[in-house]
Amino acid sequence: MLKEVKVKALVLDKNHNTPVVILGMDNNPMVLPIWIGSCEAMALSLALENADFPRPLTHDLLINTIEALDAQVSKVVIDSLRENTYYAKLVIKDLAYSDLEDDPSAMIEIDCRPSDAIVIATKKHIPIYTSDEIMLEGGIKLNETSQKEDEKEFKKFVENMHIEDFRDYFRDIQNQNKSEKKKEGNGGEKDS
Amino acid sequence: MLKEVKVKALVLDKNHNTPVVILGMDNNPMVLPIWIGSCEAMALSLALENADFPRPLTHDLLINTIEALDAQVSKVVIDSLRENTYYAKLVIKDLAYSDLEDDPSAMIEIDCRPSDAIVIATKKHIPIYTSDEIMLEGGIKLNETSQKEDEKEFKKFVENMHIEDFRDYFRDIQNQNKSEKKKEGNGGEKDS
Repeated sequence: MLKEVKVKALVLDKNHNTPVVILGMDNNPMVLPIWIGSCEAMALSLALENADFPRPLTHDLLINTIEALDAQVSKVVIDSLRENTYYAKLVIKDLAYSDLEDDPSAMIEIDCRPSDAIVIATKKHIPIYTSDEIMLEGGIKLNETSQKEDEKEFKKFVENMHIEDFRDYFRDIQNQNKSEKKKEGNGGEKDS
Repeated sequence: MLKEVKVKALVLDKNHNTPVVILGMDNNPMVLPIWIGSCEAMALSLALENADFPRPLTHDLLINTIEALDAQVSKVVIDSLRENTYYAKLVIKDLAYSDLEDDPSAMIEIDCRPSDAIVIATKKHIPIYTSDEIMLEGGIKLNETSQKEDEKEFKKFVENMHIEDFRDYFRDIQNQNKSEKKKEGNGGEKDS
């Protein structure tokens, strides 16, 4: 059965120097951590902060393209965990085909990584779903006294990390231009 | 008038520690350098290397989504340079609307950054165009004896840089997972 989850945190796993997005449900101690890449984490960080850029970032281009093709993003589903890798689907509604609310025949599912799904969901305020099976297999109960050393370590870093630490990790990349320049260093230009 | 350009190099401007994509034409000494962000450069680097990943990267998701919506990418155009920033358009053909070759009424233009346009063009082997005006304003003649010190410096770094240096710059990011993991460090997992 699918359950709606929300982004609880974007943190840095210091042991592996890898960003981790933490998904969770309201009134439930289980969280689902997903280890993601640096650039994917930066895109998510900017989406979570609702950062405004003068030019469309890649996920903005994806959303704008979907809308230009008379479709809209409807929801995202993290629906599979195989060989330690999470799989997700971006669910798009083709408005040219049907404008009925929740018409299943108008829904198109596109295979994607969880990070792309979560960035799009964050930007467009659409729900993120996952299954009980995935929460059971990949989830961690934050308030539980764990017997496993690695879970204890994980709990420790989740409890101690927050987006500011993450941003420090990314300062260099964050400072990169998001508008693409003719030439830098001629004076008067700012990172945007 | 629009002219087709190709990616001549992806290099690192060491003075600003910023990646630069160099576009050029066959049999023409003029090149067009565009300063881009780190993550955008990594996506382009992977596209230029034709790197294969088990999971779709963000630009793959964009292309797959366009094709799932019965459309296809047709060409990209770097069509404007305003206040030192380049603007581009992704041109998509809506096959549901018309399957005639080059039917202008089926073409949809989406505003984007040059880097996204160039990554998509590289992945899908579609042409990249720009205008004479942009080549004149932003282009640099590599074989010309330049009076300007900054152009001399630029020529020097273009002549001395190549993709291997660029990859060194990116080694840390390149080593990040492109599949999104349940948990790292449990043994047996490889970066993919």
